[in-house]
Order: sequence, then C-alpha cells, then structure tokens
Amino acid sequence: MQGAILYGPRDVRFEEREAPTIIKPTDAIIRISATCLCGSDLWPYRGISPVTQPTPMGHEYCGIVEEVGSAVTLIKPGQFVIGSFFASDNTCPHCQAGYQTSCQHKEFISTAQAPMLRVPFADGTLVATPDIPSDDLIPSLLATSDVLGTGWFAADAANVKPGKTVAVVGDGAVGLLGVLSAQQMGAERIVAMSRHESRQKLAREFGATDIVTERGDEGVARIKELTNGIGADAVLECVGTQESMMQAISSTRPGGSVGYVGVPHGVELNGEELFFTHVHLHGGPAPVRRFLPELINLVWNGKIKPGKVFDLTLPLDQVAEGYRAMDERRAIKALLRP
Amino acid sequence: MQGAILYGPRDVRFEEREAPTIIKPTDAIIRISATCLCGSDLWPYRGISPVTQPTPMGHEYCGIVEEVGSAVTLIKPGQFVIGSFFASDNTCPHCQAGYQTSCQHKEFISTAQAPMLRVPFADGTLVATPDIPSDDLIPSLLATSDVLGTGWFAADAANVKPGKTVAVVGDGAVGLLGVLSAQQMGAERIVAMSRHESRQKLAREFGATDIVTERGDEGVARIKELTNGIGADAVLECVGTQESMMQAISSTRPGGSVGYVGVPHGVELNGEELFFTHVHLHGGPAPVRRFLPELINLVWNGKIKPGKVFDLTLPLDQVAEGYRAMDERRAIKALLRP
Repeated sequence: MQGAILYGPRDVRFEEREAPTIIKPTDAIIRISATCLCGSDLWPYRGISPVTQPTPMGHEYCGIVEEVGSAVTLIKPGQFVIGSFFASDNTCPHCQAGYQTSCQHKEFISTAQAPMLRVPFADGTLVATPDIPSDDLIPSLLATSDVLGTGWFAADAANVKPGKTVAVVGDGAVGLLGVLSAQQMGAERIVAMSRHESRQKLAREFGATDIVTERGDEGVARIKELTNGIGADAVLECVGTQESMMQAISSTRPGGSVGYVGVPHGVELNGEELFFTHVHLHGGPAPVRRFLPELINLVWNGKIKPGKVFDLTLPLDQVAEGYRAMDERRAIKALLRP
Repeated sequence: MQGAILYGPRDVRFEEREAPTIIKPTDAIIRISATCLCGSDLWPYRGISPVTQPTPMGHEYCGIVEEVGSAVTLIKPGQFVIGSFFASDNTCPHCQAGYQTSCQHKEFISTAQAPMLRVPFADGTLVATPDIPSDDLIPSLLATSDVLGTGWFAADAANVKPGKTVAVVGDGAVGLLGVLSAQQMGAERIVAMSRHESRQKLAREFGATDIVTERGDEGVARIKELTNGIGADAVLECVGTQESMMQAISSTRPGGSVGYVGVPHGVELNGEELFFTHVHLHGGPAPVRRFLPELINLVWNGKIKPGKVFDLTLPLDQVAEGYRAMDERRAIKALLRP
C-alpha cells in the first residue's frame, strides 16, 4: 500500500507503507473513500512544528468498513463510516461529558492519507451513514470528520445562539465552516474577517452578512464600529496565532464568548488583560464525535453542503501537489481520492 | 473629615481629607455605617502594585444616604444602601448584559475607608435594603458589597450547578464566600483548598465537604484523587497568582469551568497548554451589582451569614492596624466602623 509520508519541511512523498491490520479486538480497518489535507498539516509541512522522522500523515477520513476486530459489535463490515481525528472509546467520563478528544484512551489518527486505515475503538469512534452515500455526498460527509466538526465546535464553544452577532477570525476552511455553523445555530449577524475574494464569496454563501477585511487592531475597530461600540456576542478563533487570538478576544463584548479551535502556536495570554475583558474563553481540539450524528444527518438530508470548502480534488498519489496548493494558498482545502 | 490614605508600602495613615460633596447631579453622598479592607488592598500595601502618590483607600461600603443630586430619582436620603466597588449606570448595554463592572461609564470607588462617601450614578449603583437594618445584620450586608459578590461571581462564572463537584483555590474571604456561594447554588461536593485551621473551620461552616491542604501539583493530584481521576466540574480561582491559576485550571475536568476572580498579578497563560485542557475560563472584576438584590435578600432573610468572614472589628481610626493584621494573616478580614 502507498501513502503520504512527510520527511521534512515541504517534503511530502507518496510511498510504500505497510498496510494496516487489526491489532486490537476493538479496531476496524476501513477502505478510504476520501481523505484530505488539514490546515494543521501545514504546521509541520512548513517546518513550524518540527518533524524528527518520516511521518505518515492524515487525520480526516470516511470510507467503507473492510474488517472489524472481535470486540467490535456496533460497526459492521460494508458500512460507510466517518470518524474524528481522535479515536475515543465514547464511554469514559470525558467522552460521556461530550469531550471525546479528551477521552481517557484517546489515540490520534495520523495515517489517513492512504487507501486503508486502522481505526482504534471502532465502536466509539465511527459513525455509520444510513446507507452507502452517492458520490456527490462524499465531500460533505468527509467534511464532518474534522473541518466542519471543528467549525461547529468553535460556534458551540462561543455560545452562538439565535439572534446573536458573531464574528469569525480566520477564512480557512474551518473559519468558513464556522460561518456555516453559526448560520445553522441561528445567528442574526455573521461577520467574516477575510481579505481574499474567493473566500469572502464562500463565506457569504455559507451565511456571512458582513465582511471585514482589516486585521489586528483595525479589524477590532471595525467590529466595534459594526456593533455600536459594543463588540460581538460570540467570536470564533480559527487560526491559532497570537494576533488572531488577541483579535478574537478584543472583538468580543464583555460577557461574550470566544470559541478557539486554531491550535495555538506561540500564543501567550496575559492574565490581567484577559481578566478585564470579561470574555468567556473555551476551545481546544474539537470533540467532533459529539457532533457527528447531527452533522451527518444535516448533510444526508441536504440541509448543508460543507463540502464546498474543497476547491481542489486530486488523486491520492498527487498528495504532494495538494500540500503545495494549500501552502501557497492556491487552494482552500484539497480533497484526495484513492 | 478623616480617612485612610496609603502613602507607600506598609504606610497607611488616618488623616484629614476633604469631605465629599455632590459633583454631578447623578451623585449621592452616603454616611458610612461600615467599611472594610479587601485582599486587593494588600497588593499596593505590600508594594506589589506601585503607589506613586498618597492614595485614599477603600471600595466596600454600606450606609445611610445623606444627600442626592438633582437627577437621582430612585435612591432617597435616609435609605440604607449598598453598592459595588465600581459605580455603574446600570443602563448601558454592558450593564444590561449583567457586566456592570464593564459599564461604559464605570468609575472605581476608591475612598470608602472614611465616614462619608460620594457615589456616582447613585440610581444605577446603589441598592436599598427594605428597611434600616439592625446592627447585627451590618457585617453580612457589608459583605455583599464586594467579597460575597465576588465569591458569588466566581461560582457563577465556574458554572456551579446542583449536584456538581466544586473546588475552591484560595482560603481568603473571597474563597470562603465562594464556598458559601457554591453551597447556595446546590453543589454536592465542595473541596476547600486551605492549610489554615481557622479558615478550614469557617469553610466547613459555609458548606465545604472536603479540605485539601496541598498546593500546586500536589494539590491538583489530591483533587484528581478525590474525583476518580476526572477533576472537578467547577473550580473557583480566588487568589490571582500564576501558581493558583494553574492549580485551578489543572484541577478542572475537560469541559469543566474555572471562574477566576483573583486580580491576576504576573499571570501568563500558555495558549497551547490551555487549549488541551478543554476548560472553560471566565472571570474578571465581579459584576456585583448584578447579584446585589438577590444577595441582600438572602442576608435580610437570614438565609446566609457572610459577615462571619470578618474576624476583626476596629474603629475606623485604627485602620492601619487592620492592614497590619491582614498583611500578617492574623485576620481574615477587618471590618471598620466610623
């Protein structure tokens, strides 16, 4: 079997790897129908997160169950399934509280840019669709695996409710689907912060009512201007830099909420400053598993089309070109088909 | 009129000051029945917050309205009133959202350790009791002005609900009243983190079910031990140091909440670490005004006795001894009577 392996900065190769097999009785093996590249894959690709050895890549996936271990009872061979980037038992206290990405037995899925994938805790991790989906549904179903689930969690963590004013920092695929999520949750006004025309267009399609092109302090000033000096009720932080985090916090009204899902890189928060902002802060690795049944249902019934964030589709063996396109911002998000 | 003035580290004097007068038509002048020292007064007293000029002190107060400005309509001379440490108009969008300490017109009250006090935005800031209280109610009514209101906000910000497991970091007056607040909000288990016997005793009286004497990592380990390795649902941070903040965050279960009300001094939060804890973080200067009607009601009806935190009562002119006693931890909190 061949799969994507990152050797170092900007060096992704599609190479022979061992095919996965059942290791534990709770495992499943799935045949990947589609996988993709994540914004977070760019951190090691760009050398910002160090890569110390050849590293298989990929954590977003959907596909057909090929084989299950002897302890798997809910998931069956032949089903079309979707899982999150963390395998979780879905029974421990953290899972039961809806924080499956803090599962006491969590395992990161990191080999999904390949034709076959081993998924631990199959019964806890995977959710089956009602039937085998038609091909046109695949991109949107794949999106639920991480990027939509993460945008959705950002909106949930930012306490988006009907009638609220929401701002979204970050116009990557997560930010764009944060817009879609806020729209689904009934937000009245959704301000997308973006300076790229094609992304602004998609943000509007997903429900953005306003676009702010300014960043940093100027961006904050524009949000204040749009909200009579008050600030947004809910702000989704979908980048993970110091600037984006401060932009999010400063754009929020006192008592409002920041939902942050961009993995923080070099972010330091000054306790005293944060104290006087009066914001609610919540985020972390999105517990996508909590939302999967609802999100799959919305896609299945044609209510949402999150797959629109994939503006580049490549055969899996051209994975390196996918990385290049996203790195150079020629593509928002690249889908790969084995 | 004489009042407390801080000249520099450990140098508080009771000295002649100008008596307050009505400056704006929205002001009231009140004759102080009781005032007190706050844990936060110790920051400048100890020289940790710089004191650049002789500074009048005091921000907790209750008393009888002596005079009101021409635009004051709700508050009347002769009423017994309590206010918070921030004057607030109670009509701006931040006040209406329940964040009166972020009021668009907020003014810090800083001259209350004196017999008379000017209170801006009297109608917005002050809450009158149903009648003139008996003398034995005064300490508990005074406590609502800041220390109880702050402990209450910590519990509210930490999302304390019936049946929850709560931990309280800090055994000062705010922490102790955080225990009382959690108890009033129906917490099932309340762990007070304290190594001082007299404070442990008061914590138990206020509703603590467990005491943890360890601090830092050991304290966190004890909280984990008491909660089957899960962590507390809600943690109240009532100190404001790096150690106490990290102790609070690390004691919280993924998805749980930290309510922080200790004014942070030198606290820096690493974004990536915070991200992976999955905690909710909320706090700031307590919007006591939001809670005052309810808290006054609880005191008035004898449901709670927060005044027990005052273990030292002095005549106002001995204010310097009050500072010494609290600085040396001989007293939890000193009440001053003019």
